[in-house]
Amino acid sequence: MKIVIVGASGAVGRTAVEALSGRHEIIKVGRSSGDLQMDIEDTDSIRGMYRQVGRIDAVVSAVGHVHFGPVHEMAPEQFMEGIVGKVLPQVNLVLEGFDHVTDHGSFTLTTGVTNRDPILGGSCAAAANGALDGFVKGAAVEMPRGIRINAVSPDVLEACRAQYDGYFPGHAHVSNEAVGLAFTKAVEGCLSGQVLIVE
Amino acid sequence: MKIVIVGASGAVGRTAVEALSGRHEIIKVGRSSGDLQMDIEDTDSIRGMYRQVGRIDAVVSAVGHVHFGPVHEMAPEQFMEGIVGKVLPQVNLVLEGFDHVTDHGSFTLTTGVTNRDPILGGSCAAAANGALDGFVKGAAVEMPRGIRINAVSPDVLEACRAQYDGYFPGHAHVSNEAVGLAFTKAVEGCLSGQVLIVE
Repeated sequence: MKIVIVGASGAVGRTAVEALSGRHEIIKVGRSSGDLQMDIEDTDSIRGMYRQVGRIDAVVSAVGHVHFGPVHEMAPEQFMEGIVGKVLPQVNLVLEGFDHVTDHGSFTLTTGVTNRDPILGGSCAAAANGALDGFVKGAAVEMPRGIRINAVSPDVLEACRAQYDGYFPGHAHVSNEAVGLAFTKAVEGCLSGQVLIVE
Repeated sequence: MKIVIVGASGAVGRTAVEALSGRHEIIKVGRSSGDLQMDIEDTDSIRGMYRQVGRIDAVVSAVGHVHFGPVHEMAPEQFMEGIVGKVLPQVNLVLEGFDHVTDHGSFTLTTGVTNRDPILGGSCAAAANGALDGFVKGAAVEMPRGIRINAVSPDVLEACRAQYDGYFPGHAHVSNEAVGLAFTKAVEGCLSGQVLIVE
């Protein structure tokens, strides 16, 4: 398969690259690194990326940033960061990708743990993850030409243990291999409309 | 209790009004009807409403519109209708309401069935509902001063059976009384962080 991995240099994206390289042709997309550069918050930039890659069999999206902070101190503009930084980029990768993905191809998004196992400061993240989980379930029932759509929703990556120290007390740390297996199932498997939890 | 019900004249809002009137002081808020008028998509208008009502014990939000249509024909701007029309209005009612709700008061949002039991054309609705369900779960763990937050998520209202005929095949039709009981539980009860499903 020819697979686009957006956010390929991030901690989550790397697990998909590690799991899918070797068996497939991987096109790594990043803001400033990878095979192609793209601004995920700019729909025209997404369209440009798709024009460059041509026909592809799968799109893996491992991008997104949100606002972290107490809900009662959060301004509407800060909540919007999660919409603009995580929800719209991943949804727009799907909406703009239909003409470029082959029959029976797939989209795989990345969400996260915060809407099923909340943390302090995580209400914006929980909303963004909930939106993407919901979109995947809602879209799967009417995807054209046998195209599948799923989300991978990992708990804290082992590789991010130090970075997130103290923010996810008691949460599991998951290996790159475990997260990579979820991306493999989403891309090479048969499921659609699923949120593949890794924890 | 003194309770603000936003979207009081809508099909869902009316169930909250019916269930909570009599035992409580109800302030009905609508775009063009009710005791106070407010533009739910305008944060300044939300702030103005809160200044007018003074201290309140509970806020019930029963507002929101989204885009309906096939996902592969949906433009990014159409997806955004669900964010602007349903997610941001309800989240902003919470974010702007903290200074006006009493200790141990509550916020109750309204979501819907589409992110747990999808329908054709409902991916935008599913994303909006998922965002609000996630926000409620994420926010509940850190609400200040004992304030609670929940969502009521009804299947198709019996009162909307004709309006939605054909769009929700096989879905249950729920009575005004059943939906009103969920709002009563959210406002008068003890739960927080819950999505109260009515189906």
